[in-house]
Amino acid sequence: MFAQHSKPALLHPPGAGLSMDELQLAARNHGLPLEMLRDEVTPPGLHYLLVHFDIPHVDARSWRLRIDGAVARPITLDLDDLRQRERKTTRVTVECAGNGRARLDPRPESQPWLVEAVGTADWTGTPLAPILRDAGIDEGVVDIVFTGADHGIERGIEQHYQRGLGLNDALNDEVLLAYEMNGAPLPPQHGFPVRLVVPGWYGMAHVKWLTRIDAVTEAFDGYQNAIAYRLRNNVTEPGIPVTRIEPRALLVPPGFPDFMSRRRFLRPGPTTVEGRAWSGWAPVTAVDVSTDAGASWSAAMLDGDDHGRWAWSRFSMQWDAPPGEHELCARAHDASGRVQDSQPRWSIGGFANNEVQRMAVLVADH
Amino acid sequence: MFAQHSKPALLHPPGAGLSMDELQLAARNHGLPLEMLRDEVTPPGLHYLLVHFDIPHVDARSWRLRIDGAVARPITLDLDDLRQRERKTTRVTVECAGNGRARLDPRPESQPWLVEAVGTADWTGTPLAPILRDAGIDEGVVDIVFTGADHGIERGIEQHYQRGLGLNDALNDEVLLAYEMNGAPLPPQHGFPVRLVVPGWYGMAHVKWLTRIDAVTEAFDGYQNAIAYRLRNNVTEPGIPVTRIEPRALLVPPGFPDFMSRRRFLRPGPTTVEGRAWSGWAPVTAVDVSTDAGASWSAAMLDGDDHGRWAWSRFSMQWDAPPGEHELCARAHDASGRVQDSQPRWSIGGFANNEVQRMAVLVADH
Repeated sequence: MFAQHSKPALLHPPGAGLSMDELQLAARNHGLPLEMLRDEVTPPGLHYLLVHFDIPHVDARSWRLRIDGAVARPITLDLDDLRQRERKTTRVTVECAGNGRARLDPRPESQPWLVEAVGTADWTGTPLAPILRDAGIDEGVVDIVFTGADHGIERGIEQHYQRGLGLNDALNDEVLLAYEMNGAPLPPQHGFPVRLVVPGWYGMAHVKWLTRIDAVTEAFDGYQNAIAYRLRNNVTEPGIPVTRIEPRALLVPPGFPDFMSRRRFLRPGPTTVEGRAWSGWAPVTAVDVSTDAGASWSAAMLDGDDHGRWAWSRFSMQWDAPPGEHELCARAHDASGRVQDSQPRWSIGGFANNEVQRMAVLVADH
Repeated sequence: MFAQHSKPALLHPPGAGLSMDELQLAARNHGLPLEMLRDEVTPPGLHYLLVHFDIPHVDARSWRLRIDGAVARPITLDLDDLRQRERKTTRVTVECAGNGRARLDPRPESQPWLVEAVGTADWTGTPLAPILRDAGIDEGVVDIVFTGADHGIERGIEQHYQRGLGLNDALNDEVLLAYEMNGAPLPPQHGFPVRLVVPGWYGMAHVKWLTRIDAVTEAFDGYQNAIAYRLRNNVTEPGIPVTRIEPRALLVPPGFPDFMSRRRFLRPGPTTVEGRAWSGWAPVTAVDVSTDAGASWSAAMLDGDDHGRWAWSRFSMQWDAPPGEHELCARAHDASGRVQDSQPRWSIGGFANNEVQRMAVLVADH
């Protein structure tokens, strides 16, 4: 009886203000304040956060992770079991698949991100693949299904948050069962005690508050795979699954802001324009910066990739800021040939819109 | 020249959706996810956060705090100096003065809080009063002015964030120069390395990223005292300064949510309805709960005040939830005789609106 009370997906017409439902999500979830792009590792509490339902309360002592389904030897692990296995730390930039949604026209009603749904953390845990091998994956398994403790209704479907990952992707050595974030136990909102980390993929794959991992022999058709996270133009298309993170560059806002408009104000003269860029498909190979709203572009300097494949890269460019009004932009290219669009990418769920960021800057006369 | 580019205060007419400017603030600041009201102390990263300008980068090694102005002996302190002074920890519930603003009609354009701009932390630091006494406050001093490192433009006025506090309030033993939050150094977004904590007052008084403390012999007329944080019906009224926190009770949302509407769904039968209540004026003496949209009220049980005067108090009530649609409400009373309004309190800045929370709950038939 609950399902009929859940609203269908809405599209807001061009120029429509945000609804109270969108505000409720924006007030409880949060993005990275863009000035914190100056930090390689995002301080706790400033990493973007998107929680579909409620943050569940999980008691670490009674918590168990069950590996089951089409496996030879089902396994139950507690937190100590995980901690005694191989320990691995990876620096990973994670972005919400819905980042950029609030810039779409019409705007799909959901969490209204502008550009700030990103963060970078050091995730420590144990690789998933050896655990799956210990369990003995049956012939014919196609997907591994991850179930979180978070529970609710989304578009009429009551569910625990669940995502399937193709078997090959789940067996990738990079995939972690993470129990630490930046050297401390996971905070409640980031999946305490254990979450999945799938480097290079949008956040929807990094299932938080894990309770079960099930091997299945049919492609998983749960809500978050079959309905929610797909690139499609209408609800009748099957669409394409949302997977890896599209390239994006974001600027550290220069100067100082106006409280309400967030417009930037700057003194004239030499300024370092800097930011961070990432792609889940392939390493970032170049970042272009424009100080004239995209009419012309210059290659920024890209820092060395000292922090591994999955962390964002810093870029910078010197700019002798002349008085007047300017629009700064940055766009990332990756080794797969992908580059950011100057126009938004529209889909009915509002996913993977990596439109180039535009930042208005006023440089003073003196 | 910057000032003319800052927009004046706007009022949005009844029913108007949120503007992109409001969304920019909602995406970077954040409220307490209401389910986390279950915790006495708010986990790091979930405490409400309101930053007027940018989170500044402060180097703790070169950081100094200057106590100056109308004092006999100006003082410069570094972080070690503060840490070597008397150490005190106080559990404090802090709420943003703008909490509830987004429920007003017309809606003042600013950070659009619904009800969630609150959090409780253990703040550790050293009392301010002995430092002021060491500096020797001159006769005739009326206000102590606190200056933060955060800088920007607000409603046309370029400024560091600054607030004045009356001398008597500043000399209150409870006021802390805090350098730890929940036993760890302050996170960057909460004022690293040192912030002011003024128990019982709305958040605007708790100046973050402190750099200067100045004694002044005229009432401080800076923007955040004289223009921003005042209760008034229009910009020509002088209005009343916003000071202490009005009483408020908030419910832990029962059952589980719908993703988009945040409406709650519940199985029928015995349920504990619980939440937290606070007031900066006087201790909370009673909390009433309604399960019929305020038509009738029952007294909730109030837990003992084990965590000191300045932390919120837990309340709870047993409810045998019958099938059907319900609206839950809670309202707090304090020892000063204040009680929450069932109607919003309107002011042009949208401050101190402690209207009773309303929460739609659907209880299943079976």
